[in-house]
Amino acid sequence: MSIEQTPPNFENNGIENDVERVSADFDRIHALCEILSPAFPQIEEGVPIEDEALRDKFTELTVLLNELHPADVAAVLESLPPRERNIVWILVKPEDDGEVLLEVSDAVRETLIESMDKDELLAAVDDLDADELAELADDLPHQVVYEALQTRDEEERAQVKAAMSYEDHQVGAIMDFELVSIRADVTCEVVLRYLRRFDSLPDHTDKIFVVDENDVLQGVLPIRKLLVADPEDLVETVMARDIVRFRAEDDVEEAAQAFERYDLVTAPVIDENKKLIGRVTIDEMVDVIREESEADILNMAGLQEEEDLFAPVWDSVKNRWMWLAVNLCTAFLASRVIGAFEGSIEKIVALAALMPIVAGIGGNSGNQTITMIVRAMAMGQLTGMQAGRLLKKEVGVALVNGIIWGTVMGAVSWLLYGSLGIGLVMVAAMTLNLLLAATVGVLIPVIMDKFGRDPALGSSVLITAVTDSGGFLIFLGLATLFLL
Amino acid sequence: MSIEQTPPNFENNGIENDVERVSADFDRIHALCEILSPAFPQIEEGVPIEDEALRDKFTELTVLLNELHPADVAAVLESLPPRERNIVWILVKPEDDGEVLLEVSDAVRETLIESMDKDELLAAVDDLDADELAELADDLPHQVVYEALQTRDEEERAQVKAAMSYEDHQVGAIMDFELVSIRADVTCEVVLRYLRRFDSLPDHTDKIFVVDENDVLQGVLPIRKLLVADPEDLVETVMARDIVRFRAEDDVEEAAQAFERYDLVTAPVIDENKKLIGRVTIDEMVDVIREESEADILNMAGLQEEEDLFAPVWDSVKNRWMWLAVNLCTAFLASRVIGAFEGSIEKIVALAALMPIVAGIGGNSGNQTITMIVRAMAMGQLTGMQAGRLLKKEVGVALVNGIIWGTVMGAVSWLLYGSLGIGLVMVAAMTLNLLLAATVGVLIPVIMDKFGRDPALGSSVLITAVTDSGGFLIFLGLATLFLL
Repeated sequence: MSIEQTPPNFENNGIENDVERVSADFDRIHALCEILSPAFPQIEEGVPIEDEALRDKFTELTVLLNELHPADVAAVLESLPPRERNIVWILVKPEDDGEVLLEVSDAVRETLIESMDKDELLAAVDDLDADELAELADDLPHQVVYEALQTRDEEERAQVKAAMSYEDHQVGAIMDFELVSIRADVTCEVVLRYLRRFDSLPDHTDKIFVVDENDVLQGVLPIRKLLVADPEDLVETVMARDIVRFRAEDDVEEAAQAFERYDLVTAPVIDENKKLIGRVTIDEMVDVIREESEADILNMAGLQEEEDLFAPVWDSVKNRWMWLAVNLCTAFLASRVIGAFEGSIEKIVALAALMPIVAGIGGNSGNQTITMIVRAMAMGQLTGMQAGRLLKKEVGVALVNGIIWGTVMGAVSWLLYGSLGIGLVMVAAMTLNLLLAATVGVLIPVIMDKFGRDPALGSSVLITAVTDSGGFLIFLGLATLFLL
Repeated sequence: MSIEQTPPNFENNGIENDVERVSADFDRIHALCEILSPAFPQIEEGVPIEDEALRDKFTELTVLLNELHPADVAAVLESLPPRERNIVWILVKPEDDGEVLLEVSDAVRETLIESMDKDELLAAVDDLDADELAELADDLPHQVVYEALQTRDEEERAQVKAAMSYEDHQVGAIMDFELVSIRADVTCEVVLRYLRRFDSLPDHTDKIFVVDENDVLQGVLPIRKLLVADPEDLVETVMARDIVRFRAEDDVEEAAQAFERYDLVTAPVIDENKKLIGRVTIDEMVDVIREESEADILNMAGLQEEEDLFAPVWDSVKNRWMWLAVNLCTAFLASRVIGAFEGSIEKIVALAALMPIVAGIGGNSGNQTITMIVRAMAMGQLTGMQAGRLLKKEVGVALVNGIIWGTVMGAVSWLLYGSLGIGLVMVAAMTLNLLLAATVGVLIPVIMDKFGRDPALGSSVLITAVTDSGGFLIFLGLATLFLL
């Protein structure tokens, strides 16, 4: 049977449910930071504040921060500009430092770690579990990781190294080692007595892992079955054998999907010999789900990664330049398409005013199609076989939309410029560009997927590039053919 | 003490962990549906299939479907076109029907319910808990809901009605009634004996609710504390008093945030008199988190709601027309701005080719800013006070980007058109449009929030409208002033 560690229990540590209360605390902390700003130099140097009124505010801020859950402290730190963030970070209870570092975003974590010296960092990571230390290790100075490992026993050192050996997207990187495991041939009564010997059970324990003498996973004993079982029953008669388990190399997003689909709270992680090596918990999976969709949203908006709200200007520029550069390239391409028709525009200047409408509706409609298909792929709802059927449907939608909106804008153009020809070219160009958008909107993700690429990444930029250049080409081309 | 219901335990019911296995099953089901298509009429009418080979395939499909978890069946149904979906739905075990209906997306649920007659629907909802029946009730014919309620006892009828009385975004709409509650003045030994009288405990039970004689919530007894407690200890000495609890009127997204922040598995729901009325579980919260970010992504792409992949063309058109219409209006506005400068374009036709670059980079950069701020607001990291500071930072970023990329494109334009004037206007216009994008990108969400509106909704369309029209105006205006 393996030994487990007892993580600190924060669940009951100063949290009221009232979301409003936390939000009021945040506002108060922001206000106190403003009031205290004249005293920042003293606080930073650790000398007592002379002004009595300020000293009272300082005490209030300290008390308030000490009452907050580490996850709330993390949110407060993320919401503060650098100077204030630094002050609040000084005031956080040293024993909470490690938990807070685990909770903040990567960008903010870097700024916090930069502000700490080696001893503070060592103290902060001292209470952390092996998997938590591994999570922070990449952001810590090497010397700190090295010294922190020296204070651990051999088993824990091995755990930290194991956890650090996996890629960020692998289950191994988010598993923990707080395992409670038993043998199949004991009675439930024995299990209950065994459990009572622990000081406390690991967070989220909803099942106990059943292993044989070689630590090979045999099944799981759900706590809610253990509690209703006859004490004389053997574990092997109560346990579930057909269970959801993961390998350390599995993809975290697939694991998260399994947690979501099968409503899991914890699941065992095994190695290639089916030996139990760790477990994953729903709280980590919730983070995976959140980060996954955040990443999609940021990508769609052209941000490379989550950004510290108050990052220095230069850091923000670096986070954003790539997509801006890509956008400029595609815009330049579209611009050259227009350039090729300068002669036509010189003759009918109305074309210059109407062409963005054709390009715009294509981009909007193409993004609708591609988003729907990328989402369906992410949820595992789309296999290659149906691509043809989907294409037919999307082309149908595009045709309906093209005829409706093309006619509307065609009529408007006719009225505005008094030329039926311009109106008809508008109808045709809008319909054709919508058809192009639908076709490419289905094909881009299907092809990306076939070549094993993530269809979400940059799909929005790609489709807009096609519908912009394509839209200008179709509209100006038709106009040149029929109106000149 | 209250009585609990025992939900079916699917966790161990035919699921292997291997994500690959499920995916292989999906492919096989798709293939079988294709092979079976000649026999669809017989299957639909329930007559035996004559062709022996087809009959074997039919048996294989039936067996395969019966082995799948209801959540996987739901995913299969969502991935199939209407005809195949109908066939598979006929083959699903009737006792799984209710669970599958709960798992599928709203759009697909409607198509499934349409295909069932009253008796089938009544049988499907017969096994469901009160909260699950309430969840389906909106989509079911009134007569079915009415008759389904008749078979329930008074308490359950009250529960269904209570759950149905809340709005979709309220905690009450997703709470369940599977409560296990105890009194504070008994020993842990008594609690363990009491629990043993249940056939099984509700899913996700990680804590037992402690109430007084009026059902007023006193605290919670985490199972993992109960298991390690001395049997002689009184519940009141072991239980946690300072707990996260919700009111039925609370917002589900705020509740989900609390679950995420404090790593909860279940939490009690109380009424205005602090009486325990239900509980919420992490699996529902995961759905809330997923739906919330899906909705954001769909909105950004201009889709009103999640769409059935194989929805009839007309349904898809309806789901998409609103954003297309909005997009056309903003594009028309931008077109009128260009129209106002037709005289300038006639003289310098290069302007027509260059203007989309200025508008494009403004839209891209504005979307970066607005997305970052909307995300920060959603996470509760942004209070009104910091808007000014953020504006300063974003303007700084825009200035840097404007000078860098403006200079690049200015130089390119100079080379292309051999006119230094055009190059300089390009630099100035790009910088100004980026500054406009940054300013509006900060102000739109801050103002929306001040007026109590959801800053996410349509923010991307709004900013693009501003940067398009603004970009054309700035570029063509500067060109008219300085180049003519």
